[in-house]
Amino acid sequence: MVAQPLAEFNLIARLCRRLPHGRRTLLGAGDDCAVMAPSRFPQLFTIDSMVEEVHFRLEWTSPEALGARALTVNLSDIAAMGGRPLAAVVNLAIREGLEQRFFDRLYRGLGRAARAAGVDIVGGNITRAERLEITIALLGDAPHGAMRRDRARVGDGIYVTGTLGDAALGLRVLRGEAQAPPAARRYLVGRFHAPTARLGAGQKLTRLRPCPAAIDVSDGLWQDLGHILERSGVGAEIVAEALPLSPAYRAVAGADITLACRGGDDYELLFCMPPRFGEKALARRLGVPVARIGTIVRGRRARLTGGGRHRRESFAGWDQLRNLST
Amino acid sequence: MVAQPLAEFNLIARLCRRLPHGRRTLLGAGDDCAVMAPSRFPQLFTIDSMVEEVHFRLEWTSPEALGARALTVNLSDIAAMGGRPLAAVVNLAIREGLEQRFFDRLYRGLGRAARAAGVDIVGGNITRAERLEITIALLGDAPHGAMRRDRARVGDGIYVTGTLGDAALGLRVLRGEAQAPPAARRYLVGRFHAPTARLGAGQKLTRLRPCPAAIDVSDGLWQDLGHILERSGVGAEIVAEALPLSPAYRAVAGADITLACRGGDDYELLFCMPPRFGEKALARRLGVPVARIGTIVRGRRARLTGGGRHRRESFAGWDQLRNLST
Repeated sequence: MVAQPLAEFNLIARLCRRLPHGRRTLLGAGDDCAVMAPSRFPQLFTIDSMVEEVHFRLEWTSPEALGARALTVNLSDIAAMGGRPLAAVVNLAIREGLEQRFFDRLYRGLGRAARAAGVDIVGGNITRAERLEITIALLGDAPHGAMRRDRARVGDGIYVTGTLGDAALGLRVLRGEAQAPPAARRYLVGRFHAPTARLGAGQKLTRLRPCPAAIDVSDGLWQDLGHILERSGVGAEIVAEALPLSPAYRAVAGADITLACRGGDDYELLFCMPPRFGEKALARRLGVPVARIGTIVRGRRARLTGGGRHRRESFAGWDQLRNLST
Repeated sequence: MVAQPLAEFNLIARLCRRLPHGRRTLLGAGDDCAVMAPSRFPQLFTIDSMVEEVHFRLEWTSPEALGARALTVNLSDIAAMGGRPLAAVVNLAIREGLEQRFFDRLYRGLGRAARAAGVDIVGGNITRAERLEITIALLGDAPHGAMRRDRARVGDGIYVTGTLGDAALGLRVLRGEAQAPPAARRYLVGRFHAPTARLGAGQKLTRLRPCPAAIDVSDGLWQDLGHILERSGVGAEIVAEALPLSPAYRAVAGADITLACRGGDDYELLFCMPPRFGEKALARRLGVPVARIGTIVRGRRARLTGGGRHRRESFAGWDQLRNLST
């Protein structure tokens, strides 16, 4: 209804045409729907959105990295269920001031991330908005069943892959709110801009019996653990000293675990399962570093033990919109 | 990154929790992904978005009608392939100034439209933006195969369901750019606010052999016919007098077919197939009014014959973004 014709035409079809498809995609972008061969496994379906000035700023990132990240945050939801990503559709809300070349580069990054994950970008839509927004819906399947948030049981160990708080600290560095030596800065900012979806580890976890409870750490350990506790009807004890911190994190934040607890955007996996395996055996099995950070207990709350001044920190409930302020 | 905490929490889960699910949905909203039972038929996948001030204005519509319309424009893409819609995920970009009650009503309309179409709303995401935006990704299947845009053949008849131009004329009436008697106004504005996705007719069309080429008329007959011509490598002759116009359209626009050719938002089906059946036999078979408006010919262009001053109107090419100016 705002009559301001744009010069770009058929942008989505043009962008998508360059992206190769696997054999499963019978008809890609350019029709009313994409058509895909059916899968015989349970289907996974999710949608996520990244909004300029809310989730990213263009002056902080290359278009390629932005495209890759927009897909990765979606892939992480498939990873948290232990699934295989199969196909994605992309809704681009575009604003004035962005050129064709920007979108070519955005799609180059998106395409690279898609190829690496075995995902076909099968279509999309384009509209006008006040800010750039990339909304992606992903379809996957779960050959060995899906990990859920409501399956944590009293006595389970609580585990995370990789390290926590790096992305949130990287964001502080980008904002000029934290100072970091060059190598630490590169590492932390890279963890914010170029997260990894733990797809392989997630798929391997679904082969264990009982199937673990899991979630990805997108909004911060505290909040995402809260989802598991709420859905499973259990509590948790987290040991502050057990939280996995990267050397770069320690170099900048020392022993302050606030961001490791509260920061978001790490896209590591948080999972709960009977403590049959040691950390090293689990890490070998999953192919990624694993730390046991606590235990599922009765109750409805998470308690942090150790860690000095953070000792009595606890929480009940969570706020889905908190990620807006990270 | 704009730290303005909102009072709403867990809005999507709260909204989705009220929506009933069919047996195919194994796990609905509240986890990282929804989980659905597999279908053995080809899968259809599409995404579409409605943006405030671009596709709708809140002062023109009730929240319920807006929610229903946001789903219907997506359902229409499934209808154009002749598919069955199965599951939807909803990305809400919300702005300041909208209350919980608004979203409850929006979801009431969305839920009603979903139930009527047999779709499960299985999850979603919520984010902040400058304008309200509703982006929906839909998954469906095609038990009898999918109708495509690239299957029109020389000699095919060109058909449309229902009538054309009503929604665009209704939008002009809403804007005060056209005057209409009360009954015509209600009808035309209703066609804009509450379109129908032609799901049943689309599914019945896929049982014909050869399977018709099809598209939904969302951006206007001229533009959407252009997609079929471009993808099929053919031309078209359209007979102006054959365009199906409603009594309300005639009462307001007389014999002016501009909006019937160029207006969007009707969500009727446009399809091409050998002219084996008369209009009445096709209408009986599909359960909706059908008009034959022309014939597929050699070439790459559409020509309008008849219709006086519109006689020599022709076009080559199309602009995906034209819908922004309707």
